[in-house]
Amino acid sequence: MTSISLEDVMALEQRETTSLIGSDKVEGTAVYGRDEQKIGSIDRVMIDKMTGKVAYAVISYGGFMGIGDDHYPTPWASLKYDTRLGGYVVGITADLLNNAPRYSNDNEWSWSRETDERVYDYYKAAPYW
Amino acid sequence: MTSISLEDVMALEQRETTSLIGSDKVEGTAVYGRDEQKIGSIDRVMIDKMTGKVAYAVISYGGFMGIGDDHYPTPWASLKYDTRLGGYVVGITADLLNNAPRYSNDNEWSWSRETDERVYDYYKAAPYW
Repeated sequence: MTSISLEDVMALEQRETTSLIGSDKVEGTAVYGRDEQKIGSIDRVMIDKMTGKVAYAVISYGGFMGIGDDHYPTPWASLKYDTRLGGYVVGITADLLNNAPRYSNDNEWSWSRETDERVYDYYKAAPYW
Repeated sequence: MTSISLEDVMALEQRETTSLIGSDKVEGTAVYGRDEQKIGSIDRVMIDKMTGKVAYAVISYGGFMGIGDDHYPTPWASLKYDTRLGGYVVGITADLLNNAPRYSNDNEWSWSRETDERVYDYYKAAPYW
């Protein structure tokens, strides 16, 4: 049996306010497609060290227990939190997702301004840089 | 004995690039004072949901295994990563830290524009909002 103490609940609450959210609360949160089907979850956010802006949420779609996952760097602004679903909705169709920039192994992705532009162009998002 | 596979190393590397850092890599990272003494570690970063800007790193100083810790919301810009120390250096003296805004229980802190101003004024940091 799992019990949750009042302290746990408070600690959890502290990870989110009206305007702010804790990074550890974002990690692992479910991601839904436009059709409200759960399609993945958030691995982590990537933060621009200099400006402190979130450059990407890295989302894993598919796979099982982290094996065989594809990782999609996604502009933060392309995710909308849905309180009813309890997760983020990514505003692109399944078709568009099929061609979205991704990597399967961590060493396959080279983070650079060039890939920044490719991803942000793809999601038609305003650059974080 | 703990062994680290090549995959682990790659996965780790992926959490940091020249300009970007993963939220899960920031969490738990050591924090040093001006005198290069380790004084705490980072709990999490708090992200502004609308703008995607990191509003705070929440730092725990003191305590043991999370019990009795004090939590200090700290402007991201007030932390400088030191590659030699392998952690963040917070550019305030121990004296200044003694009076820095903090909370001990999670429910003691009310995140609001008023507390934003208090913290950012204290660290003389440029507002994230």
